[in-house]
Amino acid sequence: MKIIYELIDIVGKENILYDGQEKERFTHIWKTDLPLQALAVVFPTSTQEVAAILKCCSSHKQQVIVHGGLTNLVGATQTQKEQLVMAMDKMNKIEEIDEQTRTLTAQSGAILETLIDAAAEKDLLLPLSFGAKGSAQIGGVVSTNAGGLRVFRYGMTRANVLGVEAVLPDGTIISSLKKVIKDNSGYDLKQLFIGAEGTLGIITKVILRLQEAPTSRCSALVGINDYEKVVRLLKFLEKNLGGLLTGYELMWQATYKAMTSAPSELPPPIDQNYTYYVFIECLGSHAEQDYQRLEELISQALENDLIMDGILAQTERELKHIWQIREDVSVLAALAQFDQHFDISLPISILGKEVDRAMQALEKLPFVECVFPFGHIADGNIHFIVGKSNNTPETKQAINDIIYQNLAQYNGSVSAEHGIGLDKKAYLNTSRSAEEMALMKRIKQTIDPENILNPGRII
Amino acid sequence: MKIIYELIDIVGKENILYDGQEKERFTHIWKTDLPLQALAVVFPTSTQEVAAILKCCSSHKQQVIVHGGLTNLVGATQTQKEQLVMAMDKMNKIEEIDEQTRTLTAQSGAILETLIDAAAEKDLLLPLSFGAKGSAQIGGVVSTNAGGLRVFRYGMTRANVLGVEAVLPDGTIISSLKKVIKDNSGYDLKQLFIGAEGTLGIITKVILRLQEAPTSRCSALVGINDYEKVVRLLKFLEKNLGGLLTGYELMWQATYKAMTSAPSELPPPIDQNYTYYVFIECLGSHAEQDYQRLEELISQALENDLIMDGILAQTERELKHIWQIREDVSVLAALAQFDQHFDISLPISILGKEVDRAMQALEKLPFVECVFPFGHIADGNIHFIVGKSNNTPETKQAINDIIYQNLAQYNGSVSAEHGIGLDKKAYLNTSRSAEEMALMKRIKQTIDPENILNPGRII
Repeated sequence: MKIIYELIDIVGKENILYDGQEKERFTHIWKTDLPLQALAVVFPTSTQEVAAILKCCSSHKQQVIVHGGLTNLVGATQTQKEQLVMAMDKMNKIEEIDEQTRTLTAQSGAILETLIDAAAEKDLLLPLSFGAKGSAQIGGVVSTNAGGLRVFRYGMTRANVLGVEAVLPDGTIISSLKKVIKDNSGYDLKQLFIGAEGTLGIITKVILRLQEAPTSRCSALVGINDYEKVVRLLKFLEKNLGGLLTGYELMWQATYKAMTSAPSELPPPIDQNYTYYVFIECLGSHAEQDYQRLEELISQALENDLIMDGILAQTERELKHIWQIREDVSVLAALAQFDQHFDISLPISILGKEVDRAMQALEKLPFVECVFPFGHIADGNIHFIVGKSNNTPETKQAINDIIYQNLAQYNGSVSAEHGIGLDKKAYLNTSRSAEEMALMKRIKQTIDPENILNPGRII
Repeated sequence: MKIIYELIDIVGKENILYDGQEKERFTHIWKTDLPLQALAVVFPTSTQEVAAILKCCSSHKQQVIVHGGLTNLVGATQTQKEQLVMAMDKMNKIEEIDEQTRTLTAQSGAILETLIDAAAEKDLLLPLSFGAKGSAQIGGVVSTNAGGLRVFRYGMTRANVLGVEAVLPDGTIISSLKKVIKDNSGYDLKQLFIGAEGTLGIITKVILRLQEAPTSRCSALVGINDYEKVVRLLKFLEKNLGGLLTGYELMWQATYKAMTSAPSELPPPIDQNYTYYVFIECLGSHAEQDYQRLEELISQALENDLIMDGILAQTERELKHIWQIREDVSVLAALAQFDQHFDISLPISILGKEVDRAMQALEKLPFVECVFPFGHIADGNIHFIVGKSNNTPETKQAINDIIYQNLAQYNGSVSAEHGIGLDKKAYLNTSRSAEEMALMKRIKQTIDPENILNPGRII
């Protein structure tokens, strides 16, 4: 095909897979490993090549699907055989770590964990942290505005991005690469690309804000029987820990039991019979004082009946153990034949009763085997893993309908972190008004009139 | 005029000034107090009225200039006699303070200080803080993405906005009013309106994120003779104060001298002969420990020759005194016949030598009487107040050219906080590329095809 030869001229034969070779690459969609369906896979090595590729695709009205680390959970990287895949794997350089300005500049194909480690070597913290960090590429992290475990203190990815370079569908390079925290010189264009799931432009380079690395880490696990006290404890700790509190994660009893019973190999640090379990993390700069402070507050919370039980991690091993219970949630998916994942957000004051309602309704469904709620409660963000005996569209929909039922009424979100992709499009209207969706479409049409870039995602 | 009668039908006679009455209202442009030039001033009392007014204006292609608290410094509220002014003064209700979710919902005409006080009454902190807070309206604060004194820890206004309701030029109401920190359900439309200076929509309502109010405030003032040590001290304090550091403000010697000598009534807390003065603020939750921590670090900095001199505020009075020296900068403008203000940002590593260069060049200009640099150094944001003996366009331009000379080269910004408005349009290209400005224009044309909303601002 003509376009293939044009692409070879741009990136060279060594940077493109086609004519059956593309099948060597797997799709890596969550829990699948099928050969990739695509016209070809092109591996640009520079922003200029990305621009040339998109220019070429525009002239051919060729649809392009961007592939980063393929860790997303909403089908955003699915392809059809006539679509071109642009894989950012070869644009993975760290261009600079500026220790004075505390910024990191990298190409979009760099792996998040590589960036975290590079910053750590300079005694700096890149606060973005989530399960897939070992394979997620920073361009995808920014394109999906990824969240994770430290959003409560450091914000979503959006809050940690100072600069973005992106290429528009017509090949125009938009370079907003500033290292400064403050810039009110016109529209903040980088916001357009952050969280747009690659539908408005392909991110080629980012400048991330770094923090001085904390020197102390304290953690506690507490048991609570009353949701209203989960909310009060958060206020109590935020109030008294100043800027130290970085993590406040909640697990419902069913989830904690599953995480600390066979086949899981993790023993329960505290009794399994509490209704709620809160995982607390503080990052600070004075190990002794910070530990004492947290210890005092936990015992005060005990005295005031705010919590039923609680332990502080005394050693690195205990600390690791506590957080494994929160983080190794793949254990939960393994407990059922099929599993369905959710990522909703609601005001913290409403989440408790909404989760109760959903669990009761779900347990009435004959094909539902188990329901595991847990998540970033301080951010108003809860994940559900629902285990089920079959995976029919009817089953999927019945479960979706229960979980999403009251999102609109309470101004919640169908996707706190994972994004919309293809899988959640049908439910976008639970979180966004017709006027909002119409405005999204207008923006998409303005920037991608031929609809060649990640077509069909979000809207 | 026909449109006046239509507007009266929408808001009622009591909510519109026209036919000469509009002159009762002053323009309040910085240091001017001329009668307002406008077709009329309309005071909507609800989002629906704002929508109806804009629909009406669209049909008549009537230009609309939005007036908030009129505190901006870039001519953004200037009007021509054929333009309609929409003043948000009567949409000033606080709709809710949610203590559990820690959010504040208000109409856009509410005064920032009123919101800060209302939050404080619930023992919560709205971290936005700057000189004009007593008259700035929250709609304007959000529309300009205002900064201020605590950006370093809490971020710009953008970082503190959870939800926005805005009306598009065609009257469409875009309501993105969520209380949740995390929402990846499609494009984050509120980002379009934050910092757009009212050119894409009129903000009618906002939801702001609140913080637990800190219970301790410690401050120090230190003298330093070497810029490189100003940067190192910031790293040292951030490293050792964990999340406590909220303010790190820099004053150059000339500015400190002027602020602490007659006619100013503020005595100098430390000697006037240092090259740099850093104002340090910590907000925490443990008064005694926090003070000790800061005291230790300041004496360590002294021992290590990181600073020449330093004092901690021991009393509320001393604390107030220190921060008055930093905040009452109107004193500086009063020292010259005419004054010109700047608000640039550059990477902190470059700011020192850039300010030196600019001061040397400015002092060579015969009409320049004094140059006062100071600002939010931790954010890479410096203000200049340049005193001069005349105010001709040539003088203005000569001073601009020196200050803006190297912004493009170092990826700085012509406006860190104040925005572009009308006054800085000519210099937008020092901070943004042709491609960026073209994209801004495309977005403006998409959302405001008739160019009726704050026309001529930014681009």
